[in-house]
Amino acid sequence: MSVNNQSILETAGAAAKAARRLALATTDLKNQTLSALETALLKNSASILAANALDVKEAADKGIPPHIIDRLSLNESRLRELASAVANVRSLADPVGAVEDERVLENGLTVRRLRIPLGLIAFICEARPGALVEAGALTIKSGNGLIVKCGKEMSHTAETLQSCFNEALASVALATEAVTVLTTVDRDDLREMLKLSEIIDLVIPRGGEGLIRFVSENSRIPVLKHFKGVCHLYVDEAADLDMALNLAVNGKTQRPSTCNSLEALLVHQTVAADFLPKLGAALEKKGVTIKADPEAANLLPQAEKAEDEDWGREFLDLIVAVKVVPDYEAALDHIARYGSNHTEVIVTRDGARGAHFQRAVEAGCVMVNASSRLNDGGCLGLGAEIGISTTRLHAYGPMGLRELTTTRFIVTGNGQER
Amino acid sequence: MSVNNQSILETAGAAAKAARRLALATTDLKNQTLSALETALLKNSASILAANALDVKEAADKGIPPHIIDRLSLNESRLRELASAVANVRSLADPVGAVEDERVLENGLTVRRLRIPLGLIAFICEARPGALVEAGALTIKSGNGLIVKCGKEMSHTAETLQSCFNEALASVALATEAVTVLTTVDRDDLREMLKLSEIIDLVIPRGGEGLIRFVSENSRIPVLKHFKGVCHLYVDEAADLDMALNLAVNGKTQRPSTCNSLEALLVHQTVAADFLPKLGAALEKKGVTIKADPEAANLLPQAEKAEDEDWGREFLDLIVAVKVVPDYEAALDHIARYGSNHTEVIVTRDGARGAHFQRAVEAGCVMVNASSRLNDGGCLGLGAEIGISTTRLHAYGPMGLRELTTTRFIVTGNGQER
Repeated sequence: MSVNNQSILETAGAAAKAARRLALATTDLKNQTLSALETALLKNSASILAANALDVKEAADKGIPPHIIDRLSLNESRLRELASAVANVRSLADPVGAVEDERVLENGLTVRRLRIPLGLIAFICEARPGALVEAGALTIKSGNGLIVKCGKEMSHTAETLQSCFNEALASVALATEAVTVLTTVDRDDLREMLKLSEIIDLVIPRGGEGLIRFVSENSRIPVLKHFKGVCHLYVDEAADLDMALNLAVNGKTQRPSTCNSLEALLVHQTVAADFLPKLGAALEKKGVTIKADPEAANLLPQAEKAEDEDWGREFLDLIVAVKVVPDYEAALDHIARYGSNHTEVIVTRDGARGAHFQRAVEAGCVMVNASSRLNDGGCLGLGAEIGISTTRLHAYGPMGLRELTTTRFIVTGNGQER
Repeated sequence: MSVNNQSILETAGAAAKAARRLALATTDLKNQTLSALETALLKNSASILAANALDVKEAADKGIPPHIIDRLSLNESRLRELASAVANVRSLADPVGAVEDERVLENGLTVRRLRIPLGLIAFICEARPGALVEAGALTIKSGNGLIVKCGKEMSHTAETLQSCFNEALASVALATEAVTVLTTVDRDDLREMLKLSEIIDLVIPRGGEGLIRFVSENSRIPVLKHFKGVCHLYVDEAADLDMALNLAVNGKTQRPSTCNSLEALLVHQTVAADFLPKLGAALEKKGVTIKADPEAANLLPQAEKAEDEDWGREFLDLIVAVKVVPDYEAALDHIARYGSNHTEVIVTRDGARGAHFQRAVEAGCVMVNASSRLNDGGCLGLGAEIGISTTRLHAYGPMGLRELTTTRFIVTGNGQER
């Protein structure tokens, strides 16, 4: 579908109709579509990159901050990566059509669940071409329609990507409205779109907290939220301290701008004297600023004083808060109060404690002895992800293909009555 | 918790806190709670029935319609049934704590999903004491907190039932706020409650379409909707006509006021002349009024003429619309247009067609050769149900214990980094 001025209602209606056809497409046909998409991205790379250069120039002229321009920018190698991300999604198993939980009841009725697409998904994202391509590939593979509202800073890029989707869908005679990218939608239009609960089945907003709150507060369609990631690593009294050091450094510094990076470290008091000086030295070497509570500060001469608002804060930068806790329960309490239901980590050699932590801590992903940075659909074996849900309905944690589907009951009998 | 005038925020907060403790309760403890609930219902039957008689008298004095009074009324035998429904829930497997989808990745990371409760569930129902008891039993077993807003017509009954829940929870030292029944909540309070998305995880409204729309339009909390049930039975050209006749009669007449009763019959034209006269006679014997399209009317002299608004209408009464369709595709089109995503039935001996129907028709439960009346948690082997979802997010079709849970990722490593 081309970006145009049709009303939101008509546009969404057309996308929903196309989605109904995609829902019944065979795995082969969907894979052919993804092959064609991969080809189109590579074949049209010159025009995509030209359009992207225009977007980047306009954004720079407008004084858009560098980290946003960085996310907006494509180049040859990034485009090849996107094409292989599409190929990767093609290689994943198709969840649609799987039959689950078969049971034959006493009266002879066969009850099963059939895995089906969700329908039409609205994806609200900022100026990230990569997120758009990945969302499109995942929804095609899972048989869902997609209507994307993306940041206007990427409007030229979006048009060329829309052309690639059109080419791919048309090559297998699927309706091109199955992936519809809107770049001219303002907040009022978005508000209208979020009322279309009879047409759109799910809204996935990806972006800053403000965007997500706007969508949550205005939507009558179910929203899968990905709020902020305030991730903690707790160094237990039974921790392997070398491992804890490595995981703290990796979780904080490997890519600090991401939601699964660490924002705070909690250290059991019995290991604090041993652990904190090493931690301080290692983080200093990586240029990390430490904000320490009074007890940790005694062992971290280089640290700044942590203020109240530093607990539960998403720094998204080379800054980390560090606190000494008297015991395991105090760590649980701190996480319950300041965690964001995203990723929480314990380092411990005590298996029972690790298992308890995984059950008791409220988050979509709870890790024992592993880096928070591994909470990602790809790293956890889902193949790819469309987002990370921090609320419990429908999906919790990274959302891959299966999370873009649901099941219906299919019942087969030979005349059973009630 | 006793029904009182605390603010909704405080009340919900206390329920959420109690829910967090219930979430970690063992299966044994939850089963003990349900045993104690069963005992309390039987032990306090005199006071429950006295309170219920008062509610029924007040309702009758106010001129509340008989079918609502019927739902409100309890007696000894109904109360014993409710106690055994509680015992039945106790006997079901506990979904919480199950570990699913374990995989060990190449880097040695073990990724699993742990089944956990949803948290705190708000249940908005009309004056149905049975629904309140069943919802309470299901949420206790699934480790969820429950906050119930029920119709004020059942306020005396609700207080006695609240006492039974209190007794049961207190007997195992669980906080009684885990089941909180509110009877004095008006629409403004309800509107406030529906904003508490940080405290309440899910809203399940059960009642008329007006109530469900009010909840959907005012809620910032995810809502599991159970709209109306406009269920069709399609008699295919390859149908066993005797079976079709039995299923039509059972689906329409066994309990016409329920959402899984049939509201319309679609008959393939090649079998219409054979089938419809027998259908007409059988339905006439049961006192069913037929509203027929012109073609069906030719074969059903006793029928009234179907008006446009009779298609897609939920009669909830001994009335059924009947239409002759030229082919299978026309039946699919009719259901796509007028169905309500609840229950759809095909009668056919053609297995491939049955399987196609189950995949192509949009509903939470699609049946081949079985009565629509069997779409019910109990009849489909879920043990019990808290509602039937007609939207696709999180749960679709009847919702049992498993649908009151979700999963989180639990990841265990030995120092893996990114």
